Amino acid sequence: MPHKFRSYAERAQKHPNAAARALLETIDRKKSNLCVSVDVTAKADFLNIIDVVGPYVCLVKTHVDIIEDFEPSIIATLQDLSKKHDFLIFEDRKFADIGNTVALQYASGVHKIASWSHITNAHPVPGPSIITGLASVGKPLGRGLLLLAEMSTKGSLATGSYTEEAVKMARAHNDFVIGFIAQRSMNGIGKNPDDVEDDDDFLVLTPGVGLDVKGDAMGQQYRTPEEVLTAGCDVIIVGRGIYGKGADVDIQAVQAQAERYRAAGWSAYEKLLQL
Amino acid sequence: MPHKFRSYAERAQKHPNAAARALLETIDRKKSNLCVSVDVTAKADFLNIIDVVGPYVCLVKTHVDIIEDFEPSIIATLQDLSKKHDFLIFEDRKFADIGNTVALQYASGVHKIASWSHITNAHPVPGPSIITGLASVGKPLGRGLLLLAEMSTKGSLATGSYTEEAVKMARAHNDFVIGFIAQRSMNGIGKNPDDVEDDDDFLVLTPGVGLDVKGDAMGQQYRTPEEVLTAGCDVIIVGRGIYGKGADVDIQAVQAQAERYRAAGWSAYEKLLQL
Repeated sequence: MPHKFRSYAERAQKHPNAAARALLETIDRKKSNLCVSVDVTAKADFLNIIDVVGPYVCLVKTHVDIIEDFEPSIIATLQDLSKKHDFLIFEDRKFADIGNTVALQYASGVHKIASWSHITNAHPVPGPSIITGLASVGKPLGRGLLLLAEMSTKGSLATGSYTEEAVKMARAHNDFVIGFIAQRSMNGIGKNPDDVEDDDDFLVLTPGVGLDVKGDAMGQQYRTPEEVLTAGCDVIIVGRGIYGKGADVDIQAVQAQAERYRAAGWSAYEKLLQL
Repeated sequence: MPHKFRSYAERAQKHPNAAARALLETIDRKKSNLCVSVDVTAKADFLNIIDVVGPYVCLVKTHVDIIEDFEPSIIATLQDLSKKHDFLIFEDRKFADIGNTVALQYASGVHKIASWSHITNAHPVPGPSIITGLASVGKPLGRGLLLLAEMSTKGSLATGSYTEEAVKMARAHNDFVIGFIAQRSMNGIGKNPDDVEDDDDFLVLTPGVGLDVKGDAMGQQYRTPEEVLTAGCDVIIVGRGIYGKGADVDIQAVQAQAERYRAAGWSAYEKLLQL
């Protein structure tokens, strides 16, 4: 049996992980389940877009490894913006290596992701050692990890037993794994029919959300905020639907799109709450 | 039916991909199927180890994203060492995102991987768009891509139909995909029994090779060079088995280990050639 639909606020009170709690509280406080994915390669565009969309989002998703003129001060500014606009940071690193290597990639290098990213993600394909490797760095810092249980691309191999194994791995490490990148609720997946207790409370963050488009040339497919919330997702991830190409940001247009997606995501949530 | 065992030199003559050809020629010329994985976080250690092991290897595998004091001159020095010692470079990035994003991660950011890494790798989990995204950047540069068809970690999900789908994806894009990270030959896998022609010539690079150890605390498992060559692998990947912790490199000890692994890998190859 699925859970009764619970509010973000109720889940925030009970969630054991600090990063998950902080995200649920931010969603509730800002009435926003919108995460903006900021996929631009110039530092100035990156920071401009985040400053403009900041008031409308619970979470900013980054790919700092695509920024051409990356330097450590970008992170300091990003952290300032995170405080100014009250959002969390999610470096979408998609770690996918063995435990020893991901621990180094998470902690070290020029990007030092663990030191500033509240939430990050990993593919379950290497097996549980990827979680223990990342947890050795992230858990002492109060970070949270999402596993990629499904992908929104055509021909994705993250289906069926792959998805089930991802959920089992998460459940076995739910002191650090707070949820998934997926297309629907993952609570209860991979459990035996005998398991009567269902105390899963995995967060589900969902990319491939759009109000205007159905797909791109590189295999990405889109659904509406209402479709994904109804499927049991918690956070909608939107990128170029909000800021277009990202250069020469038209502040008013980007604000309008960010508010449009925030309102669509929140309205879909409120409908479900009233059912 | 499996192919008759073919020499690296014979395969080099016939391989359609420039990066694969270059690797096979290097292996033959240097009598080395050894790739050293250089997983250290200090620039000085990174370059020292590569300069010491360079004469013994066909390929140097890097994780430039773990180097704390990374700056662009490291790449220039790495390229100089590649020419001096006659080896190719393989950034073990394990790309794992959608097509648009991996194209940016491959071309852009502080690391600009496509501009210097002859070979890189990707997980097939997002579906074929990850290959077309990377090919849009790497193919014009004559680069080659490896897919992760299997992993050497405990509980890996890259098994069964996942592995088969990886091989089918590679076969459909064999103008850019030159082979796999895997534990055995992938030629013929995922083909219909009716397919009589078997013209696959995928390179297989294999991590988890050790002469002295059987496993580490983070889930990595080890096999000998002879075991992996006999299973149909082409290149053995060895890391700390050669350079230990990596700081204060004992040049003679590291040279001795590199030569030991080169000789073990080559002797396993020569045995197979004589069968």
